[in-house]
Amino acid sequence: MAVRVDLNISLDGFATTTDQTPEKPFGDDWSRLVDAYVATRTFRSRVLHDASGQGTTGVDEKYAQEYFVDVGAEIMGAGMFGLHNFPDDPDWRGWWGEEPPYHGPVFVLTHWARAPVEMRGGTTFFFVTDGVDSALAQARAAAGRRNISIAGGASTVRQFLAAGHIDELRLHIAPLVLGAGERPFEGVHALRLEQAECTSSELVTHISYRVLR
Amino acid sequence: MAVRVDLNISLDGFATTTDQTPEKPFGDDWSRLVDAYVATRTFRSRVLHDASGQGTTGVDEKYAQEYFVDVGAEIMGAGMFGLHNFPDDPDWRGWWGEEPPYHGPVFVLTHWARAPVEMRGGTTFFFVTDGVDSALAQARAAAGRRNISIAGGASTVRQFLAAGHIDELRLHIAPLVLGAGERPFEGVHALRLEQAECTSSELVTHISYRVLR
Repeated sequence: MAVRVDLNISLDGFATTTDQTPEKPFGDDWSRLVDAYVATRTFRSRVLHDASGQGTTGVDEKYAQEYFVDVGAEIMGAGMFGLHNFPDDPDWRGWWGEEPPYHGPVFVLTHWARAPVEMRGGTTFFFVTDGVDSALAQARAAAGRRNISIAGGASTVRQFLAAGHIDELRLHIAPLVLGAGERPFEGVHALRLEQAECTSSELVTHISYRVLR
Repeated sequence: MAVRVDLNISLDGFATTTDQTPEKPFGDDWSRLVDAYVATRTFRSRVLHDASGQGTTGVDEKYAQEYFVDVGAEIMGAGMFGLHNFPDDPDWRGWWGEEPPYHGPVFVLTHWARAPVEMRGGTTFFFVTDGVDSALAQARAAAGRRNISIAGGASTVRQFLAAGHIDELRLHIAPLVLGAGERPFEGVHALRLEQAECTSSELVTHISYRVLR
């Protein structure tokens, strides 16, 4: 059992973008950051429910597939779930439609309690109001021997890194200098890492690290 | 003729470290950041004048060799030359001893005029007081058809990136989260890049980019 993070990140270190507007809830920077990922066959089939079989099938697809392998629970921040965009909508059920790509328990960090939301395909969103340690304990109990994936965004990843909870860090570095956003490593000190793997497509460089204790 | 940057950079984006003390003029962070580079045969022979032939000979050595290929002029900041450490020493001649590794003209950006300093082996340090555009013009004149290397530190690289002067960016990403230092991309916006190459040793990941116009 490992606690893993996958981060789409710009060359200048931003993993959460901040140019969203009401008209563009994801923003232009986010689109550029995840360009290679959204082009993969896995994203198209698992997230967009595109049954055509289209999408890239190279290195980026390999990493997209691995993201979902043997994951027993996900943890994400309120912003990634969409609560910052729709704070007053008690019926908000996330960005992913009725069948989210997770197919398992997802623990959402928030300051406001909500009842769990059960979606199609096995995804259930649980809302955790007492912090990252509690979210991790609940995710461990749910995941058993399977892995836990910290889905984002940057501030959630930062809290888990700072608390020493991360075992594997998988960065997908886009050839972009965004100049704005949130950095997952901001304020994280003394993290010792070991490189595990490095490969690149034309669109993105993938580097995996093990966090040393 | 291309204007190139080689940067030893931490995973959290710091290329100049700031934990120097009078007792440790380079600091602990810098030592960790350049660990792979100083282990190479090129660094040991060309910088340390170690004639034993020792040093690593793998991927890191390949990049260390390439640094010096076909470079007609170097540009560096006052801090990298050492003027911030020894501002009152009119005889300061850099960190590299009597025979620096550059073997050609080096243009040092500073606010205070100094006469050129001629070293053994063909290196001459010229002091430029009228900014990056002037330094680049002088370096171009000196380099002819050869390349120009922006040697650092982070704030010098940042100025050249922001001014749109860089053609090739070669990052050497150490598996370190330093938590402090200076970032070469801070305040640089709208840089469009194309990945050229990615390889890694056990110690560092090398990624090359072409800057698109």
